[in-house]
Amino acid sequence: MGEFDIIARHFAPLSHGEAGALGLTDDAAVLSIDSGRQMVVTSDCLVAGVHFLKNDPPETIARKVLGVNLSDLAAMGAQSRAYTLAAAWPTPIDESWVAKFAAGLKSAQTDWQVTLIGGDTVATDGPLTLTVTAFGEVGEGAALTRAGAKPGDDLYVSGSLGDAALGLLTISGELSGALTDDHAAYLTDRYRCPQPRITLGPSLQGIANSAIDISDGLVADLGHIIDESGVSATVEIANLPLSAAVRSVLEENSDLLATILTGGDDYELLFTAPPALRSDISALSTPTTRIGTIGEPDSETPITLMDADGNTVPTPQHSGYQHF
Amino acid sequence: MGEFDIIARHFAPLSHGEAGALGLTDDAAVLSIDSGRQMVVTSDCLVAGVHFLKNDPPETIARKVLGVNLSDLAAMGAQSRAYTLAAAWPTPIDESWVAKFAAGLKSAQTDWQVTLIGGDTVATDGPLTLTVTAFGEVGEGAALTRAGAKPGDDLYVSGSLGDAALGLLTISGELSGALTDDHAAYLTDRYRCPQPRITLGPSLQGIANSAIDISDGLVADLGHIIDESGVSATVEIANLPLSAAVRSVLEENSDLLATILTGGDDYELLFTAPPALRSDISALSTPTTRIGTIGEPDSETPITLMDADGNTVPTPQHSGYQHF
Repeated sequence: MGEFDIIARHFAPLSHGEAGALGLTDDAAVLSIDSGRQMVVTSDCLVAGVHFLKNDPPETIARKVLGVNLSDLAAMGAQSRAYTLAAAWPTPIDESWVAKFAAGLKSAQTDWQVTLIGGDTVATDGPLTLTVTAFGEVGEGAALTRAGAKPGDDLYVSGSLGDAALGLLTISGELSGALTDDHAAYLTDRYRCPQPRITLGPSLQGIANSAIDISDGLVADLGHIIDESGVSATVEIANLPLSAAVRSVLEENSDLLATILTGGDDYELLFTAPPALRSDISALSTPTTRIGTIGEPDSETPITLMDADGNTVPTPQHSGYQHF
Repeated sequence: MGEFDIIARHFAPLSHGEAGALGLTDDAAVLSIDSGRQMVVTSDCLVAGVHFLKNDPPETIARKVLGVNLSDLAAMGAQSRAYTLAAAWPTPIDESWVAKFAAGLKSAQTDWQVTLIGGDTVATDGPLTLTVTAFGEVGEGAALTRAGAKPGDDLYVSGSLGDAALGLLTISGELSGALTDDHAAYLTDRYRCPQPRITLGPSLQGIANSAIDISDGLVADLGHIIDESGVSATVEIANLPLSAAVRSVLEENSDLLATILTGGDDYELLFTAPPALRSDISALSTPTTRIGTIGEPDSETPITLMDADGNTVPTPQHSGYQHF
């Protein structure tokens, strides 16, 4: 079985929603964009053993590599549309594994309404390496960036924080203490299957001044907004949205708060908006929580973490995953 | 030194030609497309030890990973415009190697007038794995595909064939017999530094009925045109454009003709056009050679190879690189 068979059997069926994908049989795909719209492009590379566990289920790996890219599009306020997949497969290739991966991809792309339009299928003597490049659309000039936060803005985050970081600890058996089966399953799923905020992202156009998705951890990603916007931020720790599972873990081991603040992989949206728009934000269908405020630039203390008593808490050192 | 330093130091400067790249500091890039134009997207993944040699110079590896993608855009008749690079670097990362790679990328993108607009920078415990996704533009409905060849069409190829395949044999020391230093250098360069036919591709709009770039070898890539167009083809071997270096190798070892016919990596364009357009094709600035004709579909003999005496030559078995 050659690469063309694999493409024809497992991946070409995922391209049928987009005529410009040419059934994955040509050199490239062709995309039309309506006048007054812009294309938004992002690319994320996931390596086995680095971004996912080598024995994670193939279906969840597929969901993750697509989800993290759609999360980037959502953070720009873009409507997701299509993606390419370049996969370097360890040899000898395990076709039943590929079939499960493709089934996971099909399920995910159906949920998220995007279509495969191209890519590459090659062999590697290293770990499985998956690069998705995803395409979305926004109205001309309407893309959200990290650079628009203004002093006085509120700071918001969607969903809940720290689930994925504790999910990774759950899978690796590093969480001491009792964890109910339900909580363990919930945290594991949050690590393996990020839910890109594809509805929230586009709905923040005209509301948010800046946005980013939390892939590297709250402190690191807030740092990106601060750097690009030239502002500072104060986060009220008591207001962080935490799931029941995370609350129960923290009750046993409060030291894990640092993991909540710096752990990556949640893929929630972090954004800023003027206080005048609070009711617009409450009316959104995706749950969001106001967790702090944006201030004037402050090179000494760009991020202040405050506890429920109004006291400053040290910002954890390890502020997000660094590859090198 | 972390991934963000590497991006800021070595790759962000390559993005300055496109405002929508946002200096590689955001989640995604934003591209505008003029009304009446379509975007063309391709993605190729190159793995060290598979697509290039582990000790190839970093500058030529950079040139190759960009060039093979722009070649795909050219084969669609598209004007190249921008690209993303997702790189999985072996750890510990060698910054001086990365610097040379980035310098090669800068030189190549200047030659080919494209701009880096995004990507990803991650670590791997496997081989260097580089995925470029490239973006081009065509007029609405004007993209060339593999599917339009018609019986009666002439078959053309640009440049010369077999150089890259013999270049690989030259580097690996498998070419027996004398090879002048000039010829060895020429063949090696053709393997390491493909020249995407970025001028020829767009100029074939309105001329070619079908096109493909030769990455997998003449026989395999002609096979793709035949399959997608539902036709057959006859190739006159005596008319294949061969460089002086290839001719000199063939004089010593005529068995290598099979390598010329099936060897990949030339990245020349193979295309078909009606005989009425011969003078238009002669007038193009890129040298092309008429090497055969397209016939009615023939499931038994889809490709006929003919020698100078009009006798049929067996089609070599190994018709292009297969990964699995």
